[in-house]
Amino acid sequence: MSFKVVSSKVAASIDQELMGPVGFTLQQLMELAGLSVAEAVLQQYPVKSSKSQVLVISGPGNNGGDGLVCARHLKLFGYEPVVYYPKRSGREEFYGQLVKQLEFFDVPVLGQGEDNWLEYLEHENTLCVIDSMFGFSFHPPMRAPFDDILSKLKQFEKKVPIVAVDVPSGWDVDKGPIDNKAIQPDTLVSLTVPKPCAQFLKPEANHYVGGRFVPRHFAQKYGFEPFKYKSGDQILKL
Amino acid sequence: MSFKVVSSKVAASIDQELMGPVGFTLQQLMELAGLSVAEAVLQQYPVKSSKSQVLVISGPGNNGGDGLVCARHLKLFGYEPVVYYPKRSGREEFYGQLVKQLEFFDVPVLGQGEDNWLEYLEHENTLCVIDSMFGFSFHPPMRAPFDDILSKLKQFEKKVPIVAVDVPSGWDVDKGPIDNKAIQPDTLVSLTVPKPCAQFLKPEANHYVGGRFVPRHFAQKYGFEPFKYKSGDQILKL
Repeated sequence: MSFKVVSSKVAASIDQELMGPVGFTLQQLMELAGLSVAEAVLQQYPVKSSKSQVLVISGPGNNGGDGLVCARHLKLFGYEPVVYYPKRSGREEFYGQLVKQLEFFDVPVLGQGEDNWLEYLEHENTLCVIDSMFGFSFHPPMRAPFDDILSKLKQFEKKVPIVAVDVPSGWDVDKGPIDNKAIQPDTLVSLTVPKPCAQFLKPEANHYVGGRFVPRHFAQKYGFEPFKYKSGDQILKL
Repeated sequence: MSFKVVSSKVAASIDQELMGPVGFTLQQLMELAGLSVAEAVLQQYPVKSSKSQVLVISGPGNNGGDGLVCARHLKLFGYEPVVYYPKRSGREEFYGQLVKQLEFFDVPVLGQGEDNWLEYLEHENTLCVIDSMFGFSFHPPMRAPFDDILSKLKQFEKKVPIVAVDVPSGWDVDKGPIDNKAIQPDTLVSLTVPKPCAQFLKPEANHYVGGRFVPRHFAQKYGFEPFKYKSGDQILKL
């Protein structure tokens, strides 16, 4: 293993400190995280001259919010993103605003029951599917409709590459895939610092780190060295 | 003139629509705007092997907030930014959080009466000074302490290049420099779309557009074509 990892517990502490004493807001961190996922997609699955579709599947929490932001940046980069957002959280008003922004950008946002999301998964112009369902605070069991969505992704994973945001959905954050039905992402974008599950990626997978928002002393406090991003890049391929 | 401009009135309408019906938050737009200014600095005044100081002078409003965000990204890019923020607005709690973030990044934030900001202006390691005092909603007269700050910048403008954020401070947004005491920036970073004053830059000035957050139909509604940013870039040199 050539990269440092932090456990799900440490990742939760990092998040709490960033949004507590450090004074970052969720909106700032999510904007930068979503932008970095979009840049990883751009580097790994460049825009084609034909229609470049990307399916983004968002869960109800912060990982889902990263996906919503990512979709907006992808549209600005020249992609045709489509978002499947089956379970909207009422908890956070800001997610509603992210959806509003997507509508303004003419990005389709499908809700639960809109089964045409599957057509996008199967469509030949779909370059990749972004798994932004669950992040480092996920605990089993996987509930509906995400259990079904994941088994559909699994069926198509040889045909449509999966880009996982921070943690592949359904995986144990610390121990990796829980069984042989777990999805195997083609690309992982770890946010701030990889979690232990990143060690269980398939050998040919692409691994990026994004979410460039902590200084050296903060990284070192949590036991890792800052990643050596180049100049103004928001992502680094590990 | 090879670029489209919009008047101060239209710029105000664009802002109101983005943060009203479109659903963007100030925090999101400021994060992206500040990031784009930092990227323009990186392209125009690259980090040197010696200490690369940048002085950021922030005003009390949104233009000042863009500067605060920019300073944080500059630090992540390898610069040693110093912020002079003489008149903090009590209006917007978020600005206090931006300052808190800078303290966390060990970026000095000088307040009114801390006259050592002048030492940074004069220091040989200072690569440029960022003018984020006032933006498109400024109306004369220029009040203290910004009148004095601007005359100091004017004295040093042949020695330390000025990077103006959106509108050079003290200029008329639509008509440009108001007299021969006005500063002449070396670089202007127009946000979303240039304002008419950009036509009055000195011929050798560098002009970037940043703040990549509007889709084609929105640009066209306001009478300009979207700028042709390359791939995932957040800035475009005009």
